[in-house]
Amino acid sequence: MIERIDDLQINNLKIIQNPNLFCFGLDAVLLANYIKGKGNSKAEVLDIGTGNGIIPILLTAKIKFRHIDAVEIQKKISDMARRSIQLNNLESSIEIINNDIRLHRDYLNASKYDIVVSNPPYAKVGCGEINTKKELAISRHEISCTIQDIVEAAFYTLKSNGSLYIIHRADRLADIIYEMRRTGIEPKNIKMIYPGVKKPANLVLLRGIKNGKAELKHEPPLIIYDENGKYTEDIEMIYM
Amino acid sequence: MIERIDDLQINNLKIIQNPNLFCFGLDAVLLANYIKGKGNSKAEVLDIGTGNGIIPILLTAKIKFRHIDAVEIQKKISDMARRSIQLNNLESSIEIINNDIRLHRDYLNASKYDIVVSNPPYAKVGCGEINTKKELAISRHEISCTIQDIVEAAFYTLKSNGSLYIIHRADRLADIIYEMRRTGIEPKNIKMIYPGVKKPANLVLLRGIKNGKAELKHEPPLIIYDENGKYTEDIEMIYM
Repeated sequence: MIERIDDLQINNLKIIQNPNLFCFGLDAVLLANYIKGKGNSKAEVLDIGTGNGIIPILLTAKIKFRHIDAVEIQKKISDMARRSIQLNNLESSIEIINNDIRLHRDYLNASKYDIVVSNPPYAKVGCGEINTKKELAISRHEISCTIQDIVEAAFYTLKSNGSLYIIHRADRLADIIYEMRRTGIEPKNIKMIYPGVKKPANLVLLRGIKNGKAELKHEPPLIIYDENGKYTEDIEMIYM
Repeated sequence: MIERIDDLQINNLKIIQNPNLFCFGLDAVLLANYIKGKGNSKAEVLDIGTGNGIIPILLTAKIKFRHIDAVEIQKKISDMARRSIQLNNLESSIEIINNDIRLHRDYLNASKYDIVVSNPPYAKVGCGEINTKKELAISRHEISCTIQDIVEAAFYTLKSNGSLYIIHRADRLADIIYEMRRTGIEPKNIKMIYPGVKKPANLVLLRGIKNGKAELKHEPPLIIYDENGKYTEDIEMIYM
């Protein structure tokens, strides 16, 4: 096991990582940064597919919250997440739940959460190479959890007017928008992410609101690299 | 009537405009420019809501086509379009049809077209100020034609694997994607249009394919103005 502890460079937060099991990426950081709290009131938060707990841990430095529940299907990774929570003394704020999100009705409450967040496995099963390491494969592919699974679990667990935040591959945008509206979570905010100003979008940040009115508000594009291959100011501000 | 004739700066094409009835905008030019032909084979094209005929006229300079049918519901505007077609000697190539797209089954053939294109009225009825001049109101608002009307007419008239090209306000993106997939036109290509690199997207170009496979391909963002308020190179190339 080649575990390491990384410093998150904010509020002294740390995280346990393991390249053979799970390491967080820029996408998790972008998603955590995209989430708005509820102003002065404390949010109940659910993270679907938390991996090593990166999003809940970052959120503690970002929004006011009452409690964060974080579901991870893989036993070894959820153990790693739980140890990261302990390392940061966040046991009273964040609960790691080792379970399958498809079975959400068995262990999560209906209409409980103000915010549901998910940085889900990206590739459709059958697209791209499935990683031979089972843990990495489940984290990257829709083996245990499809877009439909996430949107349905979010609809069930969100309060009316609660927000689902999701980051996904840009080429799945139609799938996400279609599933959200079909299920009753209206796509309300969108931010496209481009590797460069002359490159196609490769990621998308979306916020949907349960039972929301139709109107999709766009945000300025997020450009990752400038013409010299360096992070843009926008990324520096989020990531550094 | 304050009609004028404008030079389109390409292939000696001209167009009749009338600020009290209909003038084309940057959006029509961006849409015409976005359309891909069928390589060496000649496309059958349908334009829904052609206004003064700007898109068919521009397309004659851009793609190989067999024939372009262009539907416009408003009598006065369709007359203006017809006179523009005559002015350019394009009567054998472009037919202006003064009819209601909601009645498409009465006068258009099923599965005839390779390409359907639409730069439709933008605002939902009830959004924004309805123009008191009836002609301008119908051209700008969804009085005679909703997104659903366009997508349904496109599905009926397109060949299988034919393309629907549409430009619309970015805040209607969820409506368009949802209607397309629901109807059987899969969103395949998307290009977001931003007034500036730090501004939210305000328009979107979309191509859907009748009975296409799910996978939305993104393109680089189109930025209209640079930091100095001048058209970017991308726009200069299209527009000038």
